Amino acid sequence: MQEAGVNLVSLGIFAWSRLQPTADRFDFGWLDRVLDLLHEGGIGVDLATATASPPPWLARAHTEMLPVLADGVQLWPGARQHYCPSSIAYREAAAALVERIAERYGKHPALVMWHVGNEFGCHVPACYCDRSAAAFREWLKNRYQDLDALNAAWGTDFWSQRYSDWEEILPPRRTPTWPNPSQQLDFHRFCSDELLACYEQEHAILKRHTPEVPVTTNFMSFFKPLDYWKWAQREDVVSNDSYPDPGDPASPMKAAMAGDLMRSLKRGQPWLLMEQTPSRVNWREINLAKAPGQYRLWSYQALARGAGGVLCFQWRQSRAGAEKFHSAMVPHGPRETSPTWQEVVRLGTELKELSALQGTPVEAEVAILHAWDSWWALELPSKPSLAVRQVEQLESYYRPLWEANVAVDFAPPARDLSKYKLVLAPSLYLVSDEAVKNLVAYVEAGGVLVLSFFSGIVDPSDHIRLGGYPAPFRELLGLRVEDWLPLAAGQEIAVAAGGGAARADLWSELLSTQAATVLATFQAAPLYGKPAATKHPFGRGAAYYLATRLDPAAMAGFLRGVWTEAGVTPTLQTPGGVEAVRRGGKLFLLNHRPEAVDVVMAPGGDPVRLEPHGVALA
Amino acid sequence: MQEAGVNLVSLGIFAWSRLQPTADRFDFGWLDRVLDLLHEGGIGVDLATATASPPPWLARAHTEMLPVLADGVQLWPGARQHYCPSSIAYREAAAALVERIAERYGKHPALVMWHVGNEFGCHVPACYCDRSAAAFREWLKNRYQDLDALNAAWGTDFWSQRYSDWEEILPPRRTPTWPNPSQQLDFHRFCSDELLACYEQEHAILKRHTPEVPVTTNFMSFFKPLDYWKWAQREDVVSNDSYPDPGDPASPMKAAMAGDLMRSLKRGQPWLLMEQTPSRVNWREINLAKAPGQYRLWSYQALARGAGGVLCFQWRQSRAGAEKFHSAMVPHGPRETSPTWQEVVRLGTELKELSALQGTPVEAEVAILHAWDSWWALELPSKPSLAVRQVEQLESYYRPLWEANVAVDFAPPARDLSKYKLVLAPSLYLVSDEAVKNLVAYVEAGGVLVLSFFSGIVDPSDHIRLGGYPAPFRELLGLRVEDWLPLAAGQEIAVAAGGGAARADLWSELLSTQAATVLATFQAAPLYGKPAATKHPFGRGAAYYLATRLDPAAMAGFLRGVWTEAGVTPTLQTPGGVEAVRRGGKLFLLNHRPEAVDVVMAPGGDPVRLEPHGVALA
Amino acid sequence: MQEAGVNLVSLGIFAWSRLQPTADRFDFGWLDRVLDLLHEGGIGVDLATATASPPPWLARAHTEMLPVLADGVQLWPGARQHYCPSSIAYREAAAALVERIAERYGKHPALVMWHVGNEFGCHVPACYCDRSAAAFREWLKNRYQDLDALNAAWGTDFWSQRYSDWEEILPPRRTPTWPNPSQQLDFHRFCSDELLACYEQEHAILKRHTPEVPVTTNFMSFFKPLDYWKWAQREDVVSNDSYPDPGDPASPMKAAMAGDLMRSLKRGQPWLLMEQTPSRVNWREINLAKAPGQYRLWSYQALARGAGGVLCFQWRQSRAGAEKFHSAMVPHGPRETSPTWQEVVRLGTELKELSALQGTPVEAEVAILHAWDSWWALELPSKPSLAVRQVEQLESYYRPLWEANVAVDFAPPARDLSKYKLVLAPSLYLVSDEAVKNLVAYVEAGGVLVLSFFSGIVDPSDHIRLGGYPAPFRELLGLRVEDWLPLAAGQEIAVAAGGGAARADLWSELLSTQAATVLATFQAAPLYGKPAATKHPFGRGAAYYLATRLDPAAMAGFLRGVWTEAGVTPTLQTPGGVEAVRRGGKLFLLNHRPEAVDVVMAPGGDPVRLEPHGVALA
Repeated sequence: MQEAGVNLVSLGIFAWSRLQPTADRFDFGWLDRVLDLLHEGGIGVDLATATASPPPWLARAHTEMLPVLADGVQLWPGARQHYCPSSIAYREAAAALVERIAERYGKHPALVMWHVGNEFGCHVPACYCDRSAAAFREWLKNRYQDLDALNAAWGTDFWSQRYSDWEEILPPRRTPTWPNPSQQLDFHRFCSDELLACYEQEHAILKRHTPEVPVTTNFMSFFKPLDYWKWAQREDVVSNDSYPDPGDPASPMKAAMAGDLMRSLKRGQPWLLMEQTPSRVNWREINLAKAPGQYRLWSYQALARGAGGVLCFQWRQSRAGAEKFHSAMVPHGPRETSPTWQEVVRLGTELKELSALQGTPVEAEVAILHAWDSWWALELPSKPSLAVRQVEQLESYYRPLWEANVAVDFAPPARDLSKYKLVLAPSLYLVSDEAVKNLVAYVEAGGVLVLSFFSGIVDPSDHIRLGGYPAPFRELLGLRVEDWLPLAAGQEIAVAAGGGAARADLWSELLSTQAATVLATFQAAPLYGKPAATKHPFGRGAAYYLATRLDPAAMAGFLRGVWTEAGVTPTLQTPGGVEAVRRGGKLFLLNHRPEAVDVVMAPGGDPVRLEPHGVALA
Repeated sequence: MQEAGVNLVSLGIFAWSRLQPTADRFDFGWLDRVLDLLHEGGIGVDLATATASPPPWLARAHTEMLPVLADGVQLWPGARQHYCPSSIAYREAAAALVERIAERYGKHPALVMWHVGNEFGCHVPACYCDRSAAAFREWLKNRYQDLDALNAAWGTDFWSQRYSDWEEILPPRRTPTWPNPSQQLDFHRFCSDELLACYEQEHAILKRHTPEVPVTTNFMSFFKPLDYWKWAQREDVVSNDSYPDPGDPASPMKAAMAGDLMRSLKRGQPWLLMEQTPSRVNWREINLAKAPGQYRLWSYQALARGAGGVLCFQWRQSRAGAEKFHSAMVPHGPRETSPTWQEVVRLGTELKELSALQGTPVEAEVAILHAWDSWWALELPSKPSLAVRQVEQLESYYRPLWEANVAVDFAPPARDLSKYKLVLAPSLYLVSDEAVKNLVAYVEAGGVLVLSFFSGIVDPSDHIRLGGYPAPFRELLGLRVEDWLPLAAGQEIAVAAGGGAARADLWSELLSTQAATVLATFQAAPLYGKPAATKHPFGRGAAYYLATRLDPAAMAGFLRGVWTEAGVTPTLQTPGGVEAVRRGGKLFLLNHRPEAVDVVMAPGGDPVRLEPHGVALA
Repeated sequence: MQEAGVNLVSLGIFAWSRLQPTADRFDFGWLDRVLDLLHEGGIGVDLATATASPPPWLARAHTEMLPVLADGVQLWPGARQHYCPSSIAYREAAAALVERIAERYGKHPALVMWHVGNEFGCHVPACYCDRSAAAFREWLKNRYQDLDALNAAWGTDFWSQRYSDWEEILPPRRTPTWPNPSQQLDFHRFCSDELLACYEQEHAILKRHTPEVPVTTNFMSFFKPLDYWKWAQREDVVSNDSYPDPGDPASPMKAAMAGDLMRSLKRGQPWLLMEQTPSRVNWREINLAKAPGQYRLWSYQALARGAGGVLCFQWRQSRAGAEKFHSAMVPHGPRETSPTWQEVVRLGTELKELSALQGTPVEAEVAILHAWDSWWALELPSKPSLAVRQVEQLESYYRPLWEANVAVDFAPPARDLSKYKLVLAPSLYLVSDEAVKNLVAYVEAGGVLVLSFFSGIVDPSDHIRLGGYPAPFRELLGLRVEDWLPLAAGQEIAVAAGGGAARADLWSELLSTQAATVLATFQAAPLYGKPAATKHPFGRGAAYYLATRLDPAAMAGFLRGVWTEAGVTPTLQTPGGVEAVRRGGKLFLLNHRPEAVDVVMAPGGDPVRLEPHGVALA
């Protein structure tokens, strides 16, 4: 580890059955030795609460703790994470274990951070068992107080769903056709909260023992089941697991986007890249290896986008078990000749030189809005078009900014946005009254907002905001949507904008502009000549609206026009595939291409040469 | 509603939980007010029995009423139609509700028609629970009387399936491989009958209270689970829900075919288009809007094909629930500017002018045979080729007639066919002795019959009719099929017919002609030169046989030859995409193309101009 | 039957419910008559134990005997094979029946052979019920004796899976993510053994009654669930069911490969082609008929590859049931005009002429290694690439030999290989210490071995063999694999070998050669110039290594070079699609092409003309 420059180790994440071999026996001796040894070597420990996977004896004693899917299928022990988040037996056993661990290691000098659970919800984001049903009802009572309020919020007059007693309410188990959408949406909220309650139970115990030791749990980038805005508030440090597919050309963009989200979760505070693979994962159908340099490149990318540290899963590649083909810092074979080990050592050495970056911020002039409840609601079935997917919509707005090296934050829709010159809202389908007020006020005060189609459609109960779409933003945008005309899979239509021609797909709609100016028009029946993009000056700012999905080049052109007008300055103009990010006074140049590239930093200046998948700091 | 020309409203279809909020409390006040209001406005009511979706309290009190799939998965409340059709609790509660409704509203002046349930079987066409198993056994006892008869009908000697006791018999639940086909076929019959028993229970109550008020339930076009020939006999009026996909170029043809089926179900009696969408549905992956004019066009098409009225689902687009994105006559936004509302008003206005059509018949000289038991049996697994699908086969015969504006009825195989000049039987796999006699007698008396491959293969128990295929029609056809040679997916072979060349796919077979004349031959090994189509004069008529699936142009040519010889007269020759139908002295011209078309009505006459998706009556 | 030359009939395979109509009543009268009649006609009987499908009364009395899938879904009666292999009720009832049958027919003069069960495991290779869980624990206790050994073998420290009590152990039921791989591997072993225990129970009863009558059960070629090496040891005669798809151009090769496996299972002893179809099966989506001559051709192919007899499923095509569309020797229609019947009679007649072949061996100089546990382990999830499939790997090595008419045996990796000039090991992922020793000794003693990538990776517990891949063969091969670089789906890279150019796909890897000679190199980054194939002289022999999948032509060239160097002699050089096999002094020429072909037997000699799908013996 010293050879590889390791200074922090996550420990004991799946150790429960070794720490507590039976219900009434604990064995901490081996863990004592590991912590002591690491401490002697000058290495800190991110110590896990070890509750991510309950031991076989617990599952056998309490089969009611096993999770159940929507179709009644029970999940059994034999892998990991086989617990119902609402299970009393699981929670009690987990609390008892964490109590012991906190007590024993809270004062250990190696302890740097607590690591609660592991990738909460990754395999079992929801449980539909009777115990979960009861917990869901408690959660609903808390939210709605009385049954009439719930009936109203869920629109139970439709399809004869009116409840006459709390006990009639169930999770959205397998039904003959789509379950009530508001019920589904609330169940999404409940599931995120119920796992958060598991986290918080452990968090409370740890804070009682060691109020000063930071607590984290590892996130999974844009992970739909958990509302990370809410979760991040309960963490001291945000940490993330990042496994971009080396075979996917969009991976550098996606990883950048995940990094920006992580940084934004706690408003710019540094985050940890908790897990990444040195080379290959094992869980895809085909697991491509990282190209030479790519491990280093993506680690630098995380630093550039605000990470305060970089870890790997895993230290030593295991001989047995379900992840033995997942790459590790120490391979199965001799490490001296292993290209992976060489990359690991190189990065470890270089990281020491970068300590000046610690704690420095990343500044952005643009924010993209993202909300988990809107994501959940948008992707429920029974929509005009299920081809509208939240993350794809985010990516279609993020990509042109990333390609142009425009720094971006993510923000929840009700957060104060006054520091941003430009705010983008791609398919922000569900909006609260508070978010509406916030966005309107932002523009009024001089902000520039771009809203896409199918935004502002429903309230937090997934009820239509009546009066003409998008009702809460009609005045802001100076228009009304009369009708939606989703496009068929593969269908493309022409769009004309300021003399230029573009293609559009996915969605079209019939707009009536009132006060808005038309920037682009559809060029195909039945919308020939009708607006496809508009602008509306409002207060001291302006609100743009985009009624379709433009082809990538046209989208880049559209957004470039908007950000230029809004006064946003890109970090640097670089060749395609080269990412430039500024942090802590350093300019990171990241070459995602498999060949060498020259980057000109200033007109007339000498070019900087980047090796294939190379990195430069200027 | 008056602005839109509405004169009939379907009401209360999913109102159970509002009408009976708990087991012992009823609340009809709100419904009283709605009926009174409609009546005051001069609008009639198609009043539902409200049993389509049981309320939560009933499902909670009787969890045994919830349906169970073949693999044991239980369906839960939260959507709609969550009842086992054989459930005693459901049936009793439904009967009690209908009794109350019939009593309260039977004499209401707004009442025009009763609407039982809703789209019976659409989500839960079959239940496999223990109660269903018991009901299935009762149904089988009724059909077979003794167990030996059942063992013989199911061929239980095969695979050691002989039953020694009625209690051993089960629905075809999930089995290691295909369940017994005769068991599956009888289960199809049972499921259709069991839902029909639900309908009939309500029908009997309604008729007891109001013998004079017509009763309907809404059908779903070619809906496989229910034998609509049988169901239609128990209705006073046939009604249908029709949701053609605007994105499917075959939709006009399919909608025409559905209309012809509906008209045929009660031998030409007018039917109701009970549900259609003014613009978009919400349940496809991507829901394309109807083009301007298409709502009107397809409504006229229904009238042309025998409808006595045209309704929409739904009046007002709901704010909440699973169908809030389904278009409605009254949209979420202001209706004045809504293109959909404008179309709704236009059609409402025009329909008043068409009252002369009421009750007029549609005359057809051609019948296509269709039988639900044959459909069920044909599509059971373990066949020479599962690529032979019933509706596709029907369509391949219907399409050329539709394109040539030849009027068509559908008929069950045992119905008197003497009024038809031509009868087509596409893959009529299962035939009863009665049907065989009927078809032979039809040809003998001068009729012309076209039979396709894989017709007349089994009896109503799905037992092979031995002696050489198709055993019951060999004499009629003057040939024998020695062997089937299904074609691989994508495989095409050449066919020669009277100097012309055609392609064929899906199926080929080795025919020995005895008395038949060869009309076309296969042109590929191993069937080179062997017959692909034959004709056999029989009695005063003729029987044609088609041993493969011809390409569409060749199929059109083949059928044109046959109908011309049979003396069938097309309504009018029109350009492609323009449909011509005669009803009640009116000639309907329906332009399914997105551009204007000129139609010449008589040689030398002035053309009639049809707008894009336009309609003309001549 | 006499007309068709039938001299052996398999009888009673699914007769249980007729032989034992209720728990306490037996009815053998009808079977007595059939056996007597066959005997009178000079036809022998392969009498089944009739236990393949339990009767309905047994399943009703013991619902706990019904199998349960990994996700808890229960399989019900109504088809066949609906028994849990560990079920006590099933085993007891089966034993009682077999006892009766053996007693009654053990001395019957028609009895030639016993036929136990039918296609063991074809629908239910595994059961996950509680009874199976208990049996699995017993099996594990037997294998591991103590729990620590099991914990070590399964690597239960990983993911907190350590067992503290045998009762905690379960079959690999549905889990949140992949179950423990060693648990899965042992469950594969258990399932094969548990079905074998069913077989052996019957085998023991039969041998007690008639020690001299041979016993068989019908295999299914390369059937993954059952370890046929182990099963074949318990049989007197290997028999196989072979249903190549006439629509698959690879069928002749696959059928040859299956024949070679069957012959190899008992080290060259003749086997029986127990089932094949005279024309069409009924269980594919689309069931193509055999071309004229193909039934005869594939029957001869079986004889050429060591079969001692050829049977068909089925004698008479049934009228009812799930297999009524499966071809039979006697068709539904008149048999006189049936092309299938004519082929059946022809073959029956010809077979009488071939009795001299009886018992003659097929000699091979090449062996391909194949092991069921390696197959199971290779295809468990969570691998570098799941696109590496065992049978495809075997085929990619078998095909060039088959095309060149090089005779091949299959062998388990620990069998004595000294009689072979060449041994091939395609992706032999799992190897025992014994197998390692055997292969090293084979080469040391002069043998030539070709090992492919991803061989020798794990031990029988699926634990990595540490020290650099492939650890047990590094010295033998003179190289080490530093890293795996699986290729993406559809990705092809260039390979250079001795001036020639080839393409490779599926897999690449970074090799360090120590003592090995490089035969071919990769021509693409990041492996440009690195070895793709190597040779290493070792002892008196040589070991080749192939680090990728070559395109078929290059693979053929590579293997041709190796077998030529190893002194292997092809049987005959034939045109493509013509197979030549030598057996018992006869040279079989088999034309798999649909057109006639001339084959030159010796330079300057007269060519032998083979009809389309024709056969010649020289």
